[in-house]
Amino acid sequence: MTLSYTDILALPKEYRRNLINCLSGYKSFCLCGTKSEDGITNLSVISSVIHVGANPPLVGMLMRPPVVPRDTLTNLLETGFFTLNHVNETFYQQAHQSSGRYSAEVSEFTETGLTEAYSDLHPAPYVAEASVQIGLSFQERYDIQANGTVFIVGRVLEVRVPEGSVGEDGFLDLEKTGSLTVNGLDGYGKVERIARLSYAKPGKEISQL
Amino acid sequence: MTLSYTDILALPKEYRRNLINCLSGYKSFCLCGTKSEDGITNLSVISSVIHVGANPPLVGMLMRPPVVPRDTLTNLLETGFFTLNHVNETFYQQAHQSSGRYSAEVSEFTETGLTEAYSDLHPAPYVAEASVQIGLSFQERYDIQANGTVFIVGRVLEVRVPEGSVGEDGFLDLEKTGSLTVNGLDGYGKVERIARLSYAKPGKEISQL
Repeated sequence: MTLSYTDILALPKEYRRNLINCLSGYKSFCLCGTKSEDGITNLSVISSVIHVGANPPLVGMLMRPPVVPRDTLTNLLETGFFTLNHVNETFYQQAHQSSGRYSAEVSEFTETGLTEAYSDLHPAPYVAEASVQIGLSFQERYDIQANGTVFIVGRVLEVRVPEGSVGEDGFLDLEKTGSLTVNGLDGYGKVERIARLSYAKPGKEISQL
Repeated sequence: MTLSYTDILALPKEYRRNLINCLSGYKSFCLCGTKSEDGITNLSVISSVIHVGANPPLVGMLMRPPVVPRDTLTNLLETGFFTLNHVNETFYQQAHQSSGRYSAEVSEFTETGLTEAYSDLHPAPYVAEASVQIGLSFQERYDIQANGTVFIVGRVLEVRVPEGSVGEDGFLDLEKTGSLTVNGLDGYGKVERIARLSYAKPGKEISQL
């Protein structure tokens, strides 16, 4: 099937939303934890987390346009802190439920039955059920002109991962941590590794690590 | 294992690079196709593709700092066009090989044995072996202050996907297209879907689609 830009604009809204959300390929599946200045915790599903840099350690994510109240964006800008927590199979339905539009007065932790966990290093709530927990401070914000989405860059303040999940070379095995992936808006999957491949150089055969 | 920001900065370079590259969770695995003004085609592995918007259809990706020649970034800025092509199991080793640092004078298509394909709608080369092919025009550029990486937003000009891979609601089934995912810098995996879940609303039970 081939669709042009004009064809895409003419698609029914839900069809277009599903199709275009799938185009980017498999995505990260994280819960973003924040706390308001009034102390109310918040959780939201984020499927746009990307690596920005290792030194200093930076992570980026895209957030929807703040044309309606967006508790996560408001909280992370006001307090300067947020967490990213990998979702695994034991609580992915609760994670999905947290994407419902809850009022800023209620905590998605309470509503979904997930558990808050805290660090001494920053005030944002982790999801205790998550095996990979990342604490971040807000660094940069870029407002995308074309549609008002917001690209946020965070600095990694803390990493909490299970013992035995990191190899000698620093590779964090996301099969061992049970991290899931997302296809489009609502398709959740688990991953089986095919291979790790050696660093590529022109004229050199690659091999499996 | 718990690491603070200071601990991370003190890690050996390769260990830190692997660990931090894995923190974002599972990533998209695409080849970006461009052509220079001199007509030399280029391919590069991109694992930072994210959904930006459905209407208009927009895709974003992060590129490394242009402190050394970056053919993909140069080409897409000069010509205004690029493609994203989902990598599947039949050619993932060739895709990985294209991440080697080849001279701007040679085409990674030639070097890796992948095949160029073209559309009437734009001049950028697709990877014929890819089941999902997306043609884009350059829209916006944001230079990340903290480390000089570049966030690029592209507008979707064309989508080419296999017959039968898109459901009635527009969901593009990435298992059917054979799209792979990446863990960190070099871990490639395939995905098995657990479930699609219904739209979440406060107080409403979610169900499987």
